[in-house]
Amino acid sequence: MKTSSRGAVDAFIVMDVMEAARAAEEAGRHIIHMEVGQPGTGAPQGALDRLAADMDASPLGYSVALGIPELRARIARHYGEWHDLDLDPGRVVVTAGASGAFLLAFSLLFETGARVGLGEPCYPSYRQILKALDMRAVGIPTTLDNRLQPVPGDVAANRLDGLLVASPANPSGTMLSRPEIAALSAACDAAGANFISDEIYHGLTYGVPAVSALEVTDAVCVINSFSKYYSMTGWRVGWMVLPPDLVRGAERLAQNMFICASHASQRLALHAMDCTEELDANVAVYARNRDLMLEHLPRAGFRAIAPPDGAFYVYADVSDITDDALAFSREILDEAGVAVTPGVDFDPDRGRHWLRFSYARGTADIEEGLARLTSFMARRGTAVAQ
Amino acid sequence: MKTSSRGAVDAFIVMDVMEAARAAEEAGRHIIHMEVGQPGTGAPQGALDRLAADMDASPLGYSVALGIPELRARIARHYGEWHDLDLDPGRVVVTAGASGAFLLAFSLLFETGARVGLGEPCYPSYRQILKALDMRAVGIPTTLDNRLQPVPGDVAANRLDGLLVASPANPSGTMLSRPEIAALSAACDAAGANFISDEIYHGLTYGVPAVSALEVTDAVCVINSFSKYYSMTGWRVGWMVLPPDLVRGAERLAQNMFICASHASQRLALHAMDCTEELDANVAVYARNRDLMLEHLPRAGFRAIAPPDGAFYVYADVSDITDDALAFSREILDEAGVAVTPGVDFDPDRGRHWLRFSYARGTADIEEGLARLTSFMARRGTAVAQ
Repeated sequence: MKTSSRGAVDAFIVMDVMEAARAAEEAGRHIIHMEVGQPGTGAPQGALDRLAADMDASPLGYSVALGIPELRARIARHYGEWHDLDLDPGRVVVTAGASGAFLLAFSLLFETGARVGLGEPCYPSYRQILKALDMRAVGIPTTLDNRLQPVPGDVAANRLDGLLVASPANPSGTMLSRPEIAALSAACDAAGANFISDEIYHGLTYGVPAVSALEVTDAVCVINSFSKYYSMTGWRVGWMVLPPDLVRGAERLAQNMFICASHASQRLALHAMDCTEELDANVAVYARNRDLMLEHLPRAGFRAIAPPDGAFYVYADVSDITDDALAFSREILDEAGVAVTPGVDFDPDRGRHWLRFSYARGTADIEEGLARLTSFMARRGTAVAQ
Repeated sequence: MKTSSRGAVDAFIVMDVMEAARAAEEAGRHIIHMEVGQPGTGAPQGALDRLAADMDASPLGYSVALGIPELRARIARHYGEWHDLDLDPGRVVVTAGASGAFLLAFSLLFETGARVGLGEPCYPSYRQILKALDMRAVGIPTTLDNRLQPVPGDVAANRLDGLLVASPANPSGTMLSRPEIAALSAACDAAGANFISDEIYHGLTYGVPAVSALEVTDAVCVINSFSKYYSMTGWRVGWMVLPPDLVRGAERLAQNMFICASHASQRLALHAMDCTEELDANVAVYARNRDLMLEHLPRAGFRAIAPPDGAFYVYADVSDITDDALAFSREILDEAGVAVTPGVDFDPDRGRHWLRFSYARGTADIEEGLARLTSFMARRGTAVAQ
């Protein structure tokens, strides 16, 4: 059988490191996981208990394509609670994770060959999903001066058909302010480009809350997920908010492409939205972890970091240490027993100078990982370039 | 915001009928649902019980992209049990339902603009997913002489890059024999076309078991699902079997497009595969329903039906009654209180002469529905054309 060129997406370079970590564990070594992009916790217990009751009460067959009405209504209410917005539940589309939302949004919004701008570094699957759909990912090199986020001039300069931003971002954790979002939105409007805002790390902030693009415009496709703040990665459920006139088209596409998101996952998500106490306890752990990271990483020798506004990542410039972050991450794994992510998947060119450290696991793991990193860097001597 | 032409897929015409049925129920009428394409039962109770234990024991975070190893191994073993095949578990890819499998398979196998043959009538989402991916669905008019299935000559005659067959088929319920599958596969090989076999209705057969394309060739992409025989529609989990050399490419795509299928759904699927007693009891209900359908539909006046080999559908030619199956299905809903599906979604042109009756619900519903249809047709007089 023949395969297509559009489907020949890049491998994740980090898989190499993850496989090495797995092999090390299989050989009996203890590894601290600072490479992971998911919470160490599962779904809130209160929500799981209520799902168990739902499973007894209903066959949980197909839902309607846009999602169960209770969940759409609850998500709309959430925008009132968190962003002081009065959102029509009819604009909410429940999706099979943010992954399903990207497939749906790109198919809805862009023609074949469309130029979609991504501020690099960014989540690598944006680029690969666009390739699989035969659209063109346009990497925009961002600067630390702009918190590693794109700027309004990038839209026209790159002749974009769309711009996708993330705040808080992965891998950098940086956020966009309300005026910055408004300016990016206006630049998209002026250029006739579609504006997409990935808000899956909302709720994971430490001081200043994240701004939703919906606070400044209705001409946006907002994508969110129950994987991060709601700690439901494996359940594969997320959502979009669309301009009202786009919902009918999204419904038709979703009916055909997905039928619906997992019904059980939708019920669990509905219940999770009431588990504020459990979820905020998770965030308190991340906040404690983040404090530890910001205290100990610079002492260890990782001094140049992106503004760690949100999410559960610290993105560090290691250009003073290496020109090959992949080899350096292998060295850290071998020598320190800590798995970290090299920047190359997030930023194909400049990522060789960066590492991403995740603090999504428990605090004891973070403490142990930081101790190992500190001791490794002291042994190594930070001035030794590879 | 602008939307794309490729994403502007057709509406399901049947939605119109389903909305009318919903409105009738809301107004207090009792409707028998012969339009549904899903089992009336939920997942097997034995599997649900074991999932509840899994939910206590594990956070059920992301799985690896190809699916949990236990499930891939169990699916491979299933091909030994059902088809006497020794299948390498490494060829099994767990997907987010058959829907996810189609998105993954088409992206993996076909370039933009590729011509993919579909024997009409067929599942309407095939065509719409291909459109959303900017590929070209090539409708092949099938004949009753060929059990409403495509024939080998169709591959070259339509200059196909791929052929997608389903056995048992939706909406017709007809099956392909082993020699027929072998001949279609050989025609695809000869033409350099990719061969895809949708086997989601396997297990729902009444006498002769369904043949898997894997029994005759390894050069095939087989798609299956836990939605029908395993009665797990809303859980959105299915699988593919690929030639060995295509698995790595599928893994890369799946990592980016889906991350993974719902982990809980994968656990449930694993457990469901051990619930043979419960599942075969469901099939016994369908078999009883099918006997009733085959006895009473012809008596009511629906005499010209496709060979009802499998699935849970009877597809009836009503060209002696109407040229407008959609209007006729509305009439049946209004006058008989039975929701049925007009053929137009499955076969845009000839479907106006066909109706699909589902017998996926409980036997009491089927008996009542047949009584209503019989009485309606007697009142109406079958000779009156619209």
